[in-house]
Amino acid sequence: MTVTSAVDAAEARIEATEALVSAGRTLFTRKGYRQTDFAELAEEAGLDLAQARELLPDKAAVLGALIERTVKVAGLLRPAVAEGVDEDLPARLARIYLALWEPGEEEESPLVELYRIALSDAEASRVLRGRTAEALNAMVDHELPGEDAEIRTALFGAQLSGVALVRHLIGVRAVSALDVETLIAAIAPGLRRTLLGVEGIEGTEGAA
Amino acid sequence: MTVTSAVDAAEARIEATEALVSAGRTLFTRKGYRQTDFAELAEEAGLDLAQARELLPDKAAVLGALIERTVKVAGLLRPAVAEGVDEDLPARLARIYLALWEPGEEEESPLVELYRIALSDAEASRVLRGRTAEALNAMVDHELPGEDAEIRTALFGAQLSGVALVRHLIGVRAVSALDVETLIAAIAPGLRRTLLGVEGIEGTEGAA
Repeated sequence: MTVTSAVDAAEARIEATEALVSAGRTLFTRKGYRQTDFAELAEEAGLDLAQARELLPDKAAVLGALIERTVKVAGLLRPAVAEGVDEDLPARLARIYLALWEPGEEEESPLVELYRIALSDAEASRVLRGRTAEALNAMVDHELPGEDAEIRTALFGAQLSGVALVRHLIGVRAVSALDVETLIAAIAPGLRRTLLGVEGIEGTEGAA
Repeated sequence: MTVTSAVDAAEARIEATEALVSAGRTLFTRKGYRQTDFAELAEEAGLDLAQARELLPDKAAVLGALIERTVKVAGLLRPAVAEGVDEDLPARLARIYLALWEPGEEEESPLVELYRIALSDAEASRVLRGRTAEALNAMVDHELPGEDAEIRTALFGAQLSGVALVRHLIGVRAVSALDVETLIAAIAPGLRRTLLGVEGIEGTEGAA
């Protein structure tokens, strides 16, 4: 294989994968995750089944790739964590996470429909967990002191994602109507207790 | 109409409504909420369309009735609120709410599949909001002092429901593995800050 044809083949592979992921977004939204099968995804993407399976092995992998394309998780929380573990860390994390959910140019963030898909089915939720919740938690809990850092981070993340879901998926007015900074100010004291412990981190403040 | 035939008619109506709601659970689970139409619900329930519409006017009403049948919201939080607004109120509310989500005799609580259905679609989420979140919040915020009681209650509810969703739908291990009382103890200090304000309620404690 010449260099040119190897490059062409790699590009064709990327394009075909993109088509398969786009097919996932289309069919998971239209038919639901549970009701879509892999053969339909391949057909929608214009690929034969064997070719599609070679790119992404199953429906869960297509959803995983769709999540990765929609939520850029890698390094997402790094700016918040890089400033160290201080009393303001929960608010910095909340600011980054909640910004993902705010509508930009679109009427709603792409996360809204993605979460509708992913929360509708147990397998889809497992994919979501691995690609978002567990990945985000790992960026934080490794930085925290204490044996219960993993539990505190997971509970912090659960509460923060609850705020995002109620604001953007469920739409409780009292939560949806707040501007983001007012919202963060209202939840930060409580989230600080959950993430950093009841005693806070007096005495360790400034230590990064 | 005789008394007997009036009673028979009322019973037939209740049975037909039950059949329609059961059809909702079956088809929303199998096909998804968005992909189910009202005519299919009527057919699954063995009713003609006009008869079904007279019982419950549309698909959203069927979901609403299914939610009411699954989550007994009316008076649910009364025992927690009846003890007054004190520092333990957030834990008492959390205990009642989280108990709904714990698996009993079944492998999972019926709320799990219900929330999968309701979070999969914007219209379904609006129905869920009215029947659960807003109804539950109203039982609490009317009891709380302060102009921002509605906002604090809604944020408290959002965080608590996030914990339930991450524990039971998304399944993050660090949250799922905790026993309920350990979980409540871990989130109570933070939730207290959100619900009762940063200053807590020192000075008003004991006033109900």
